[in-house]
Amino acid sequence: MQFSAKEISLLLNGSLQGNPDVKVFQLAKIEDAQEGSLSFLANPKYEAFLYTTKASVVIVNEDLLIDKQVTPTIIRVKDAYSSFSILLEKYNTLKLDKKGIEQPCFIHPDAKIGKDVYIGAFAYIGAGVVIGDRSKIYPQCYIGDDVKVGDDCSLHSGVKIYHDCVLKNTVTIHSNAVIGGDGFGFAPQANGAYSKVSQIGNVVIEDDVEIGANTCIDRATMGSTIIKKGVKLDNLIQIAHNAEIGQNTVIASQTGISGSAKIGDSNIIGGQVGIVGHVTLAKGTQIQAKSGINKSIEEEGKKWGGAPATSYQNYMRSQVIIQRLPEMEKKIEELQRALLALQQNSSASN
Amino acid sequence: MQFSAKEISLLLNGSLQGNPDVKVFQLAKIEDAQEGSLSFLANPKYEAFLYTTKASVVIVNEDLLIDKQVTPTIIRVKDAYSSFSILLEKYNTLKLDKKGIEQPCFIHPDAKIGKDVYIGAFAYIGAGVVIGDRSKIYPQCYIGDDVKVGDDCSLHSGVKIYHDCVLKNTVTIHSNAVIGGDGFGFAPQANGAYSKVSQIGNVVIEDDVEIGANTCIDRATMGSTIIKKGVKLDNLIQIAHNAEIGQNTVIASQTGISGSAKIGDSNIIGGQVGIVGHVTLAKGTQIQAKSGINKSIEEEGKKWGGAPATSYQNYMRSQVIIQRLPEMEKKIEELQRALLALQQNSSASN
Amino acid sequence: MQFSAKEISLLLNGSLQGNPDVKVFQLAKIEDAQEGSLSFLANPKYEAFLYTTKASVVIVNEDLLIDKQVTPTIIRVKDAYSSFSILLEKYNTLKLDKKGIEQPCFIHPDAKIGKDVYIGAFAYIGAGVVIGDRSKIYPQCYIGDDVKVGDDCSLHSGVKIYHDCVLKNTVTIHSNAVIGGDGFGFAPQANGAYSKVSQIGNVVIEDDVEIGANTCIDRATMGSTIIKKGVKLDNLIQIAHNAEIGQNTVIASQTGISGSAKIGDSNIIGGQVGIVGHVTLAKGTQIQAKSGINKSIEEEGKKWGGAPATSYQNYMRSQVIIQRLPEMEKKIEELQRALLALQQNSSASN
Repeated sequence: MQFSAKEISLLLNGSLQGNPDVKVFQLAKIEDAQEGSLSFLANPKYEAFLYTTKASVVIVNEDLLIDKQVTPTIIRVKDAYSSFSILLEKYNTLKLDKKGIEQPCFIHPDAKIGKDVYIGAFAYIGAGVVIGDRSKIYPQCYIGDDVKVGDDCSLHSGVKIYHDCVLKNTVTIHSNAVIGGDGFGFAPQANGAYSKVSQIGNVVIEDDVEIGANTCIDRATMGSTIIKKGVKLDNLIQIAHNAEIGQNTVIASQTGISGSAKIGDSNIIGGQVGIVGHVTLAKGTQIQAKSGINKSIEEEGKKWGGAPATSYQNYMRSQVIIQRLPEMEKKIEELQRALLALQQNSSASN
Repeated sequence: MQFSAKEISLLLNGSLQGNPDVKVFQLAKIEDAQEGSLSFLANPKYEAFLYTTKASVVIVNEDLLIDKQVTPTIIRVKDAYSSFSILLEKYNTLKLDKKGIEQPCFIHPDAKIGKDVYIGAFAYIGAGVVIGDRSKIYPQCYIGDDVKVGDDCSLHSGVKIYHDCVLKNTVTIHSNAVIGGDGFGFAPQANGAYSKVSQIGNVVIEDDVEIGANTCIDRATMGSTIIKKGVKLDNLIQIAHNAEIGQNTVIASQTGISGSAKIGDSNIIGGQVGIVGHVTLAKGTQIQAKSGINKSIEEEGKKWGGAPATSYQNYMRSQVIIQRLPEMEKKIEELQRALLALQQNSSASN
Repeated sequence: MQFSAKEISLLLNGSLQGNPDVKVFQLAKIEDAQEGSLSFLANPKYEAFLYTTKASVVIVNEDLLIDKQVTPTIIRVKDAYSSFSILLEKYNTLKLDKKGIEQPCFIHPDAKIGKDVYIGAFAYIGAGVVIGDRSKIYPQCYIGDDVKVGDDCSLHSGVKIYHDCVLKNTVTIHSNAVIGGDGFGFAPQANGAYSKVSQIGNVVIEDDVEIGANTCIDRATMGSTIIKKGVKLDNLIQIAHNAEIGQNTVIASQTGISGSAKIGDSNIIGGQVGIVGHVTLAKGTQIQAKSGINKSIEEEGKKWGGAPATSYQNYMRSQVIIQRLPEMEKKIEELQRALLALQQNSSASN
């Protein structure tokens, strides 16, 4: 892909200064940019780079004062940062614009495929599957029997969706994530062995959800494990059977949510957190990375930390004191000695 | 799949009350059930739902007293819960009854394939592989050269088994799990680089083992990493080279077992636990989620918690005190002040 | 594969004692070895096994004194351990010597494939991809558009590389690892939803890097996430967008490195560690398993532990005291009682 400074300026409704015909073919940070790059300057801290950058075109805020000579073509816009974000998005949309059905792939005759979809080579589409319009199923994905995928979804290479699961619209799932594997349910037997509890529920993923690479979401024993509208899950996360993740909740990498836990709306949960089964977390809860949550949180909008977790304030205070423990122990010993001296003194003076 | 109330009653050896011809096509919890659902009532707490449920058929205990009018057809059995479990299992057996060889797949001419197997499209079966009777190899699985898979195994889509590994009978492995990747063995060199220690052992997985999605079990450097009979592993678990997991041990998600660790029989290990290399855990050991085990455990049947772990009792006591640390520190300061006052007082009175 | 004792002796430049024609077809530890095995004895602790082993050939140090009769053929070499390592490597090189292009696979007409490569069935090679000489792309790998793979790389079954990423030479990646998935970047909106920040950077992996199964390395927002020469990553690790891992750094399983963190050269990082974003770790830093690093480390070559981490020494001391907390609390109560007694005594005597 290659664009002239003039084309970009028109797209962003900007005003151009310098050579309108210079061509750019990549996006880069102003400090790293090479010839042929398009860059931007929004943060005044980076202003000095404007005079040294090798970028061919730089987008700046319309009120920026440029007092020395500059090499790149300048495009002035109202908000350089958001204009650049728009370009990033357009770039990716063009770059990732795949369409059509590559061969060989496996599409069961009973599957229904929407309009303008992409189905990559070696993808597997089972019986009774429905794929909505403009959805992209990358190579080597597995879509089990009777799965429903809505419109405008992207399933990157190697995603596995077990039978009966439901993805609504604009769902993005990254490579090798597994949706709908069996919940971890086993009943102990008299002889010490475990017998499997059949897992016949499914997973429902609502609109605008994004799920990271290698993340696992288990199907419900009965009913559904539910990932609500707007949830964003990072890589390598575990969501156990019958859990429910509330709207617009964000969870960082390597966190584990146990069975039947109900995470509220708009939670922000750090990485490597563990949450036990059957608890409920109130709306707006925030959890520090590496914490362990072993009971329900009822008050909305609070921050928690530690394992087991307490209020974030308590947690921070306790952490500081833990580092002072050797000192504390020493003080106690001094107190013991001083007290002994006083006791001897007092009994001597009596 | 669709069944009449009468067919289900005959299957469970129950006694039927209501319309025997009503049809059900799905299983559901009594509180969520819609028309066409089969449900059950075992827990007296849920009895009220019997009079409001939309389920078409409900299985109940034979001695249940029904004192109001009910809409669904009722099937009375000895034990409603276990009857329903039987149905769940039958449902899944029917639902997941795949057979035959889908095309395209890759089966090396030197591989031996048993009777009544399922091999999905895009599965890869290497040279010298043996697949037992009735085993299911879902689409996009990779079975490396000389791997042995026993009878009645299920390898879900995307499972990767490196060369030379051995799966006995009735082993279930969920999507994208990796069995037999190289152990993490590198020898430091004088120049600061690491040179790889070749990993030529394998992984042996005994009967009745179930392994979760995206779990990794590394091959031994020499000899075998061994997962014994009846072990159940959740998703995203790491089992390092030359580890051994004892019979009927259950391990929750995101736990890591380091190299050459020997986990005893019937252990119950929580999620996000870390266990260092070369330790031995006694039979019946139970480990709290998020704990870190850095030494062997010799006494059988004990509970442990914390990182590094102590007895579960100690761990719980210390956790409570950690939350009282700010208060404890205050007490020490008060003691220091009071003692100083006494000392001054005492020297003044001398 | 089968070799005679004589062939092995010649290969290792050793001196042979016993039957030169005995054949071996596998490698085994001296204590486990069966007939037909080749084994070695380097550690004097294992010397007794020399007289009981069933191995057909044993490699020993040239100065070993053998005072009883032995069954296996003996090969004396300068250093038995390193000679055996050489054999392990040769064994694996022969065992894993795959070449040629298996069908069906998908190779875009615009891809460039080097000499003597292996491309397994169901592998996907996108437009503009370059694969260097002697590289092995195992079945079911995905190599996105414009990816560059250098010479002598091994990508095991199911590895997914998103578009534009760069792998230099001698890179090994284990099954189902995901390279170049989107960084976890979302901007909060006024209505509580998050909008995606497009991730247009890539991942660069330098020479001699090895990456474990199911590990995820996210692409940079802009620029590159960089894994430098000689880095070794275990399984199930998370490396977030724009992170940088320094030369010859080793990271154990299930550790997570957050966005824009810069890990120095020759770091040794244990399992299940979490490192927050935007920090810098000095050269030679060592981090205890399960630690949490929440700030930069400037001093080189130090050990750290705990979450949040302190110096390893402090961490160990605090851990010991934590286990003494119940005792400490008791001492404080005793001090309070003794002081009260003294105070009463003192006021009584005034």
